[in-house]
Amino acid sequence: MRRGFALLILLVGMLATAFAQSAQDQKPQPGGALTGRWILTGDYLGTTLNATMELEQKADKLTGNFDGDKLEGSLTGNSVHFLAKDDQGGSEDGTATVQGNTMTGTVTFVDGSNPSHPVTIPFTAKLGTPYQPSGAPKTHEFTPTVFYRQFSPFNKPVLTVNPGDTIHTTTVDAGGNDEKGVPRVLGGNPETGPFYIESAQPGDTLVVHIAHLRLNRDWAMSDDAIVPRGLDSDLAAKMKDGGKTILWHLDVAGGAASPEKPTEHLTRYSVPLKPMLGCVAVATGLASAPPNTGDSGHYGGNMDFNEISEGNTLYLPVNVPGALLYVGDGHAVQGDGELNGNALETSMDVTFTVDVIHGKRVRGPRIESTTHIMAMGLAGSLDDAFREATANMADWLTNDYKLTPSELAQVLGSSSEYKVSEVADRNAGIVMKINKERLESLSQAK
Amino acid sequence: MRRGFALLILLVGMLATAFAQSAQDQKPQPGGALTGRWILTGDYLGTTLNATMELEQKADKLTGNFDGDKLEGSLTGNSVHFLAKDDQGGSEDGTATVQGNTMTGTVTFVDGSNPSHPVTIPFTAKLGTPYQPSGAPKTHEFTPTVFYRQFSPFNKPVLTVNPGDTIHTTTVDAGGNDEKGVPRVLGGNPETGPFYIESAQPGDTLVVHIAHLRLNRDWAMSDDAIVPRGLDSDLAAKMKDGGKTILWHLDVAGGAASPEKPTEHLTRYSVPLKPMLGCVAVATGLASAPPNTGDSGHYGGNMDFNEISEGNTLYLPVNVPGALLYVGDGHAVQGDGELNGNALETSMDVTFTVDVIHGKRVRGPRIESTTHIMAMGLAGSLDDAFREATANMADWLTNDYKLTPSELAQVLGSSSEYKVSEVADRNAGIVMKINKERLESLSQAK
Amino acid sequence: MRRGFALLILLVGMLATAFAQSAQDQKPQPGGALTGRWILTGDYLGTTLNATMELEQKADKLTGNFDGDKLEGSLTGNSVHFLAKDDQGGSEDGTATVQGNTMTGTVTFVDGSNPSHPVTIPFTAKLGTPYQPSGAPKTHEFTPTVFYRQFSPFNKPVLTVNPGDTIHTTTVDAGGNDEKGVPRVLGGNPETGPFYIESAQPGDTLVVHIAHLRLNRDWAMSDDAIVPRGLDSDLAAKMKDGGKTILWHLDVAGGAASPEKPTEHLTRYSVPLKPMLGCVAVATGLASAPPNTGDSGHYGGNMDFNEISEGNTLYLPVNVPGALLYVGDGHAVQGDGELNGNALETSMDVTFTVDVIHGKRVRGPRIESTTHIMAMGLAGSLDDAFREATANMADWLTNDYKLTPSELAQVLGSSSEYKVSEVADRNAGIVMKINKERLESLSQAK
Amino acid sequence: MRRGFALLILLVGMLATAFAQSAQDQKPQPGGALTGRWILTGDYLGTTLNATMELEQKADKLTGNFDGDKLEGSLTGNSVHFLAKDDQGGSEDGTATVQGNTMTGTVTFVDGSNPSHPVTIPFTAKLGTPYQPSGAPKTHEFTPTVFYRQFSPFNKPVLTVNPGDTIHTTTVDAGGNDEKGVPRVLGGNPETGPFYIESAQPGDTLVVHIAHLRLNRDWAMSDDAIVPRGLDSDLAAKMKDGGKTILWHLDVAGGAASPEKPTEHLTRYSVPLKPMLGCVAVATGLASAPPNTGDSGHYGGNMDFNEISEGNTLYLPVNVPGALLYVGDGHAVQGDGELNGNALETSMDVTFTVDVIHGKRVRGPRIESTTHIMAMGLAGSLDDAFREATANMADWLTNDYKLTPSELAQVLGSSSEYKVSEVADRNAGIVMKINKERLESLSQAK
Repeated sequence: MRRGFALLILLVGMLATAFAQSAQDQKPQPGGALTGRWILTGDYLGTTLNATMELEQKADKLTGNFDGDKLEGSLTGNSVHFLAKDDQGGSEDGTATVQGNTMTGTVTFVDGSNPSHPVTIPFTAKLGTPYQPSGAPKTHEFTPTVFYRQFSPFNKPVLTVNPGDTIHTTTVDAGGNDEKGVPRVLGGNPETGPFYIESAQPGDTLVVHIAHLRLNRDWAMSDDAIVPRGLDSDLAAKMKDGGKTILWHLDVAGGAASPEKPTEHLTRYSVPLKPMLGCVAVATGLASAPPNTGDSGHYGGNMDFNEISEGNTLYLPVNVPGALLYVGDGHAVQGDGELNGNALETSMDVTFTVDVIHGKRVRGPRIESTTHIMAMGLAGSLDDAFREATANMADWLTNDYKLTPSELAQVLGSSSEYKVSEVADRNAGIVMKINKERLESLSQAK
Repeated sequence: MRRGFALLILLVGMLATAFAQSAQDQKPQPGGALTGRWILTGDYLGTTLNATMELEQKADKLTGNFDGDKLEGSLTGNSVHFLAKDDQGGSEDGTATVQGNTMTGTVTFVDGSNPSHPVTIPFTAKLGTPYQPSGAPKTHEFTPTVFYRQFSPFNKPVLTVNPGDTIHTTTVDAGGNDEKGVPRVLGGNPETGPFYIESAQPGDTLVVHIAHLRLNRDWAMSDDAIVPRGLDSDLAAKMKDGGKTILWHLDVAGGAASPEKPTEHLTRYSVPLKPMLGCVAVATGLASAPPNTGDSGHYGGNMDFNEISEGNTLYLPVNVPGALLYVGDGHAVQGDGELNGNALETSMDVTFTVDVIHGKRVRGPRIESTTHIMAMGLAGSLDDAFREATANMADWLTNDYKLTPSELAQVLGSSSEYKVSEVADRNAGIVMKINKERLESLSQAK
Repeated sequence: MRRGFALLILLVGMLATAFAQSAQDQKPQPGGALTGRWILTGDYLGTTLNATMELEQKADKLTGNFDGDKLEGSLTGNSVHFLAKDDQGGSEDGTATVQGNTMTGTVTFVDGSNPSHPVTIPFTAKLGTPYQPSGAPKTHEFTPTVFYRQFSPFNKPVLTVNPGDTIHTTTVDAGGNDEKGVPRVLGGNPETGPFYIESAQPGDTLVVHIAHLRLNRDWAMSDDAIVPRGLDSDLAAKMKDGGKTILWHLDVAGGAASPEKPTEHLTRYSVPLKPMLGCVAVATGLASAPPNTGDSGHYGGNMDFNEISEGNTLYLPVNVPGALLYVGDGHAVQGDGELNGNALETSMDVTFTVDVIHGKRVRGPRIESTTHIMAMGLAGSLDDAFREATANMADWLTNDYKLTPSELAQVLGSSSEYKVSEVADRNAGIVMKINKERLESLSQAK
Repeated sequence: MRRGFALLILLVGMLATAFAQSAQDQKPQPGGALTGRWILTGDYLGTTLNATMELEQKADKLTGNFDGDKLEGSLTGNSVHFLAKDDQGGSEDGTATVQGNTMTGTVTFVDGSNPSHPVTIPFTAKLGTPYQPSGAPKTHEFTPTVFYRQFSPFNKPVLTVNPGDTIHTTTVDAGGNDEKGVPRVLGGNPETGPFYIESAQPGDTLVVHIAHLRLNRDWAMSDDAIVPRGLDSDLAAKMKDGGKTILWHLDVAGGAASPEKPTEHLTRYSVPLKPMLGCVAVATGLASAPPNTGDSGHYGGNMDFNEISEGNTLYLPVNVPGALLYVGDGHAVQGDGELNGNALETSMDVTFTVDVIHGKRVRGPRIESTTHIMAMGLAGSLDDAFREATANMADWLTNDYKLTPSELAQVLGSSSEYKVSEVADRNAGIVMKINKERLESLSQAK
């Protein structure tokens, strides 16, 4: 449990992959009633956190793992006992009472590097059960009244929906202004949500399909700076007075944006509208501080990628029960990279459908369009973002198409497409794309 | 106020310098009772935040600035009215009642990019007054009972001290274990504090002098991984099984650390102890999400620099009234970069003295030893950290020694020393150092 | 002349822009017979190098600049005397005899930092004269017999052509094998050329339009490694056995490539052919060592960008008289980045038309397709390549469309597209693209 | 031979390590007269290149490897036949005549990816024999008359010396001016040398101990720019007018440098002299274009590291017979990073002793002082240079101290020191240092 509870906080980036693997490789086989993935919520010396226990029950025997540590246990009546061990002297020793899909008890955690001081953690656990639809999917109309500025697991869900359901709602602009221009909240990408998705658990993947994304006012705010990642020394000197607000008129019917007060060389300049959401996120895990809504990571967040747009589908790894989905930061149009720091910031009318892929966790944000699959890398430099995008796509192809390392190299080398998604925020973003026609030839391989 | 309130959240990194400049350049001259720097605390549509108003009172006239916007106003009895404007149509229009060093009222904020929708913000303000010592500095004994895992402005101060006072306390190790090895809190660099420093305000600099830093137990925890920033492709393949816990014995009397269970080639390997604090931080501002205690930035935080050690002094920019100082994450010894992700993590006995430099804000963390001044750069890549360290030092020399750009280049080119402080966390760190003997010849220039 | 002769070697990258500016801003007005841009070839203590002298003759008076230093002089009969000075005590003092478009003499160079030791340089110079077509453009059939492995100004031209002419030739593959598979030269991107383009001079831009680019054999060589820039630590460990040769079958009629001996999951995998040239280059200047044919820079070179393909046009800055154009390193198809280090390497049949833009020097490689203009950045990291691509495009828009800094930011922010061109070589490449429809609205601005 | 001859050019960076390994692991055992490492010089379709053949002779049987490919062969009289194969269908099939330490013949090279087109390469080979000193080491006085501007294997050696010999000579400054200020050659770090070191062969390491490094004139040239790698956007705008020449007075007796015409704040500014060589290099291999003297890499070159100074020892990998050692680019003093692009550039009087470590090839430049061993990383970004420095040191400790990966991580994590050596040139440099006291405890391990 050391890795699960203690090091999770230190090493969350590194472990993300490991968890993903574990979730997929150890998919529990059908078995007794306890068989499946249990999500524990415990209190570790005052901090609430989650752990994942995968059990397989055969008669009164339990096997499985506790946050990746190999586990053995037994069921006696409704009493469960289990003991999991890591390979460095650490262990989790638990006793609990089962009632249906719920378990309540304590687990004693021994850190192998400090074995004489165990910690006892009271917990409750719920068995994840694949969602069973009861009736047709619903469409929810949701009018936001509160807007959040962190991708936090601690915000109260504004709505609970089922996998397959559709939500129609609105978002305020990055500065907190709604479709009428009314300031509703302090700026900084305030979000609509969070939406609780039934049955979504840590270890799952949330699917968000953007059915409609429409402008609901006729102006956007941007500026005339270029962010530091776009400036070499000479251009920095030239752009040093940049940063003034630029208002854009959005001709929604005509499908184009143009500066409201264009200067000499821009009197006829206009750009086709292509609405997108700068932010789509799931809440991060309980144990670490929630990020502000200007940040991004494996949870999505302020990705500012101009293909998170109508018709496309986003995949994000679930970190807490219900996933807690946030959306916001609409852009009427944005060049690759969001070079001004702001895109054409505006409010938005959005309709999306959610779903859950159980027992499979993506490494980081992935996007699918009618023509491409796309894996995003987000990191502190473009060089590291490039590595992460490639690794994210490598995971995808390896897991879904069973490619060997040699095959992976051949496919990536001959089919990769890369674009820069974002350079304006703390993380830079690069997206690796593969044309779905290439994938079809892989699927047909046997 | 647009920049102060709204964009602060988006652009806090970029504006940091501007604020620093404004604080220094516009140091209010002696004048009427209202003259000075006022820190406002307001409620912007539900979010609490701070702003800075610098006033100069001459009879019933007020001049100054509001978060950098030029301000004019008047005093009638104890009623204050002020109006500040930016150069893009934005304004702050305030009315308040003064009582001694306190002001209460409302300010109406117009965003120049959305002028038809002003926002009215109720606020209270306090006039910053230079600290007047009343009696000798005190030494406080403080035994921590709670440990925080965010550098948050929202945590209740555990102790309030005056500039010049000294605090003697202890810190738990990065995993949350105290000097007896007892787990006290979930790991992830839990901190002792926050300490509230009287008279420290946004726009000031907090000074932390580490008088004593001593080991208080005989073991430390580390591991045998090398972090990704240290691995090229070949070394990554070679190190792929790294990450096991390594326990170190700390021979405090002998001044050396050695692995508790050394393998063949390390049976005589030992390293001189050099205790340091991985984390020293002030709280971040109110408007943005507080960072977790694994992160770092202009506020200091998890810098993991092995010269934050006994005898040295750290300078950090104050973001909220009282500064809110946190300390933690002691290392018995750490190589440059913290290559294992962990250093020799242990609990610590620490004594430090605090002070405040009023009206002057450093750009980011600075350190002073008996021989050197040091400016730290923290960013998502070593290349960007190098730029930030250089810019931080350039600010220092420009502001304190009035060097022209040409002089600055000559001094930096002939005297710079750079070391890598940290590669293990989200931010990498580089420290630029200048030998104080060089500075002496600058001070003597006329 | 210090900058022209001495610092050119140290600072060639930085000065490139300055030279470009000077060439454009000081376009000589019509005047006496000496008016125009003279390219000097001199001997500086044993090293041959070029300098540029721009003259305007009015009667017997000469004005202009010598490598950017302001010049004054006089013409007496056919004797020329000139004196140019920089602002740091340096000067070029010349005496020469003019005969038609040729000048012969000496110039005495004083380095302002070492003024007591002038250097006298014998030189000849030629006046650049805009190319006057005499007759229709020609098409040249060229069969290469020698292949070069440096983008050198010292290789003897294999053919001299006029602006507007077309060349039809072939290239060997990166390993030196021709269309019959016969090894012709040691590998490492051996090149066809160099072609001398009449009238092209330093300060000009060479235009290369790729009219046809066709495969001329049915196989290509690649491998199954992923280059280090694509590997994070985990993927590096996974890919550690990569690097085996992979042969691809090229179905030229069917327009697709597939592995010759596909393994299990690739039995139906195929990729559409999209022939491209990995290398197109002009020779570098005389004073610095010529780069090998695996390198890239402002001169183009081994750019490995998959839009240097049939129908597109490349612009490169001319460094020596005649430009000296090289082509090679054909790829049947290449994913963005050339992730395997090799693309599908093959020989090629190529037809291209050349032209010269006189008196205007591009900063670095630019490409034009039917839909986009593209500016390439090449640097030691993706982050620096991104900066260079942006600066290259900023120069383009500023010079050709007269955009102000604010207008530039608005256009780039709303219209930028970025892709990663290359990560396999010493320089990484990023390409910034702007849709030509955006530019049309700029052209129509008044 | 494919890898040896053909891919060497493409992949020289990647293979460097492999070669080093091969040289060390396959150190030939004592045996027949042919036993040892043969360096072949061949003509591959017009290009001269080297290959390495390691042979072990037992009676008439030969085993070994040809550029890493496993080899078997036979000796009949003085006729040698050998056949080496790689694992991808490639081979080298050779026939030669032996005479003493010399071999002459042809080798037929089959590229496994193009097996139907073998290439026959005429070659001569020499058997490397450990240097046998005959008499005491000599000291050579050498006065340079020619200076080179490439680290080329094609320049004629100016002097041939034995391992153990000492050379006393002078270097001109980076601008080509000698100790009297006389311009001797075009600037750009012109070099003294190359010196041919008897017995040094590819696969060996050249050792250069700098016995004396003394100033021989009283002035140096620098400037007041800061290079782009040191500039963030704000500092870039501030420094935009930098780049003027700054002359420094060198008070050799007093041991200090100061600006010749100091401006207001620098009237008393002075810096202690610490002479260093910006450039020390071996020639690069035959097959690739030689780098200019502003570049750096595994061969050393323009490293601009201020600990390449009197008393220290440099280790470089030998690429061609005789190593061909170059020295130049003296700096009177240089801050870390060479922030101005120039250090205090001056001529120098230098005395150094050379030696050869046979059969062991370092990965890249290494430096040893009385207190530290240092491994340099040179790459296109500081992040990549950091990786390379760490990998270079990891190789050193693994090879010389036999550390396991876990032990390596423990030593590096607890003992690493990193400084930035260079940011002014195409490659940035980072140096990893380990205190030799740490190494002593490793040596004593058993």
